[in-house]
Amino acid sequence: MELTILEKNYKKLCNHAKQAAVLASALRLIEWDQETNMPSLGTELKTEQNKLLHELIHKQMTSKKYIKLLSGFISIETGEVLTPDLKPEEIACVKQMRKDYLHAKKLNASFLKKFTEATTLSLDAWKEAKKTASFKAFAPHLEKIVALTKKKSDLLGYQNHPYDALLDIYEPETSVLLLDTVFSSLKEKILPLLEKIQHTQDKSFETIFEGKTFPIEQQKKLCTDVLLKMGLSPNNHHLAETAHPFCSALSSDDIRLTTHFNENNFLQAFLATIHEGGHGLYEANLPKKYFGTPLAEAASFGIHESQSRIWETCIGHSKPFWASYYPKIKELFPKALEHVCLEKLYGHVNFVKPTLIRIFSDEVTYNLHIILRYEIEKGLLDGSLKVKDLPEIWREKMQNLLGISPKNDSEGCLQDIHWSLGLIGYFPSYSLGNLYAGALFSSLINTHPDLNKEIADSNFLSIKEFLNQKIHQFGRQYPPKLLIEKAINKTFSPDPYINYLTNKYIK
Amino acid sequence: MELTILEKNYKKLCNHAKQAAVLASALRLIEWDQETNMPSLGTELKTEQNKLLHELIHKQMTSKKYIKLLSGFISIETGEVLTPDLKPEEIACVKQMRKDYLHAKKLNASFLKKFTEATTLSLDAWKEAKKTASFKAFAPHLEKIVALTKKKSDLLGYQNHPYDALLDIYEPETSVLLLDTVFSSLKEKILPLLEKIQHTQDKSFETIFEGKTFPIEQQKKLCTDVLLKMGLSPNNHHLAETAHPFCSALSSDDIRLTTHFNENNFLQAFLATIHEGGHGLYEANLPKKYFGTPLAEAASFGIHESQSRIWETCIGHSKPFWASYYPKIKELFPKALEHVCLEKLYGHVNFVKPTLIRIFSDEVTYNLHIILRYEIEKGLLDGSLKVKDLPEIWREKMQNLLGISPKNDSEGCLQDIHWSLGLIGYFPSYSLGNLYAGALFSSLINTHPDLNKEIADSNFLSIKEFLNQKIHQFGRQYPPKLLIEKAINKTFSPDPYINYLTNKYIK
Repeated sequence: MELTILEKNYKKLCNHAKQAAVLASALRLIEWDQETNMPSLGTELKTEQNKLLHELIHKQMTSKKYIKLLSGFISIETGEVLTPDLKPEEIACVKQMRKDYLHAKKLNASFLKKFTEATTLSLDAWKEAKKTASFKAFAPHLEKIVALTKKKSDLLGYQNHPYDALLDIYEPETSVLLLDTVFSSLKEKILPLLEKIQHTQDKSFETIFEGKTFPIEQQKKLCTDVLLKMGLSPNNHHLAETAHPFCSALSSDDIRLTTHFNENNFLQAFLATIHEGGHGLYEANLPKKYFGTPLAEAASFGIHESQSRIWETCIGHSKPFWASYYPKIKELFPKALEHVCLEKLYGHVNFVKPTLIRIFSDEVTYNLHIILRYEIEKGLLDGSLKVKDLPEIWREKMQNLLGISPKNDSEGCLQDIHWSLGLIGYFPSYSLGNLYAGALFSSLINTHPDLNKEIADSNFLSIKEFLNQKIHQFGRQYPPKLLIEKAINKTFSPDPYINYLTNKYIK
Repeated sequence: MELTILEKNYKKLCNHAKQAAVLASALRLIEWDQETNMPSLGTELKTEQNKLLHELIHKQMTSKKYIKLLSGFISIETGEVLTPDLKPEEIACVKQMRKDYLHAKKLNASFLKKFTEATTLSLDAWKEAKKTASFKAFAPHLEKIVALTKKKSDLLGYQNHPYDALLDIYEPETSVLLLDTVFSSLKEKILPLLEKIQHTQDKSFETIFEGKTFPIEQQKKLCTDVLLKMGLSPNNHHLAETAHPFCSALSSDDIRLTTHFNENNFLQAFLATIHEGGHGLYEANLPKKYFGTPLAEAASFGIHESQSRIWETCIGHSKPFWASYYPKIKELFPKALEHVCLEKLYGHVNFVKPTLIRIFSDEVTYNLHIILRYEIEKGLLDGSLKVKDLPEIWREKMQNLLGISPKNDSEGCLQDIHWSLGLIGYFPSYSLGNLYAGALFSSLINTHPDLNKEIADSNFLSIKEFLNQKIHQFGRQYPPKLLIEKAINKTFSPDPYINYLTNKYIK
């Protein structure tokens, strides 16, 4: 069958974008390698490779040829679609391509250079400041980052709040208006829930692993097993070890996962593997035929996080899941778990306790950490909050939200790397991921009455298929909130997530 | 100090080349990753990355801008150097750049496309043919490869023999005329030597490892140790495992080595690690300041091989080396080596026995395998030999040279991957590597009277420094034979290598 001119040009457009995607995949390999295999002296070359590939990708995606091709389908200026004959997903595709192009154009080279220079310096300063718990040493860098981020908001443009421009990068069509509502409702519900849980849970569950050892080789077997059970193929993924676990997909056929082993607690590697496995499954099931276009990309950071969190928390922290894995785990760690019954193990996995450190927090308190960061970032952007006051504000908010307060800034406002990298606007995606996961899980349970039984049999096929059908296959075709609403067939709200927590912890 | 215009332009030229080198290093990472970490489904994307990066590199190194810069220093047409004010190494650099450019231009895109298509098909055909020991299935592919290789020789140009054009790729300024002399002298000396050794050596040394086990974890320790002793830094290299060991340098600061572990014989991984470590040391000591130019590249494949073989054979198979490592090895493998004295171990390491397979052969018979391939390749190129007669000719030559004959073509003319990849002209570099290593080692011994004592103390500093001084620091500044002659301060001949073998095996 011969292609029409429209089809031919659309193919040309996608092929052009695909070239950049092939380079971007090489870039991701370089970054993955840096964390996993590279000897330390390799950094200098990596920096050069990184810079050059970024330049080549930017050149490809802002080239005259590309703009000419794209302009055949959509007006760059107004966003009007000029070729209504395209299929709906193709229309979504050219809209996203235009959005990406405008983003790349607005953040011009001179701004990006300044931004990169500032974050390079601030990253080093943050590392040092965190070591010595000295916020003062980091403050001037953060001030610079905040000033540049305000500039970034201006360049990108916004209607109501400068923070909206940043949110749009990570969570398209989300806004301060929306988050204020969502987060205040969340806070209102979680605070009393947390108090109740702290009064009712069995305190002895906290320490069941004290003095125990879990051989790494056995932990590796467990991690390999769970990834296959979740639905990854031995031919499409690779699991390595790094200090901080992450997932990076070179393509839907080549998923790189990492985890971190702790000999004294197998849960760290196991749950991190399930989390990264959730990210990996999303990437593995993005539609391969659209590789290189927005239709084969994740919908947003929040949607990505929903895929990891639904596996890690809703499933990986559930009773049927632990019932299914209990015999295997006993077999792998017979000595460490000699006197640990399923109830104790499950109680330990789900033990709730406010902690100063976000990445160590349980599923009930996690979102409070994010709300704290959200309120601070918003204040920094609209000027209602000053960088120099950060440590004090942090302590105050921490006390109000979690009832604890850091002894120093390393376990306070210096704990996360994000601000030093200029990633302001990113944190809310973590919470949105939880809320999306809660909404998806509620819909999954409602439409699959046998789900708990299936999970208890380590049969995760329905889960995988549900997520493929409802989320993965659409790539970036819909904005995140709409994607979720289409998936759950109702209006999005934090309620399902709050109900999930309430039902789980308050019997 | 301000730069002159000449200096400025030379810097521009080198920076232009450096961009291509950064891309080439990304390409090498992609290739290394394919052998070490990539899940099997990743091949498709790798192929795309490979193709695109090759194109970008080719574009960069044949661009008008580059030619204009280069033409400021050397006439592309005649090779006349136009700027005698350059330093000698800079003159060598622009000469090599011109050579590379002409090579890239002569092998035009349409030829390369045909060649790549043919080798892609023939690689698959070879794999299948080797499995089923059916030369007939591979023959049409090899015929095509030979025809295209003749075309390649024509495109590259030659004076006397079409094979000369191919040799020049791997071993600049080498020729059939030279190799005929060298190889016939080698054959003449090795054949009687081999016969003598077979009558005098202790046959019981062959089987000392039968039924023994060498735990992989312990082997890893040994391999890690020897690389550090040889002079690699823990910060500049990474050792991984692959089916076939190799070394690939992303830069002089990032050396990727691989080895292959066999639980029944630790020598396989240990000696392969020493071999690859020799390649790695060469790469690690190429002058970093010239990165991206021929001055930071290896002189030739033969010179590269001399660096691995001097470590693997002249040193790694020597008596003082085994005396130095014997206690450590006994400690690592106490059970397997319970009744193995140093003399037996040394005898086993150096046991000489003709084998059908090149990669399993000892240092005495190895070159006979190469001579056989050299004679065949030369015949295929000048038409005195037909592809269809290959199996018969192989058996005949094998019988004449080694006194053994393959039962089937898998252990005969199908054993090596090279021809299926179109690598005709590459084999002689293996033997030249041995001969260069012999010449270098003889000079090293003569100028370092304490060398054997140092080796017996696991002190390899003199060796490393000698190779740095005489070989590594010059990059591709000199053609290989001249580089060796400057290093040893006399005319190059196979004699030192033959003397080395004779002195070692005939007491």
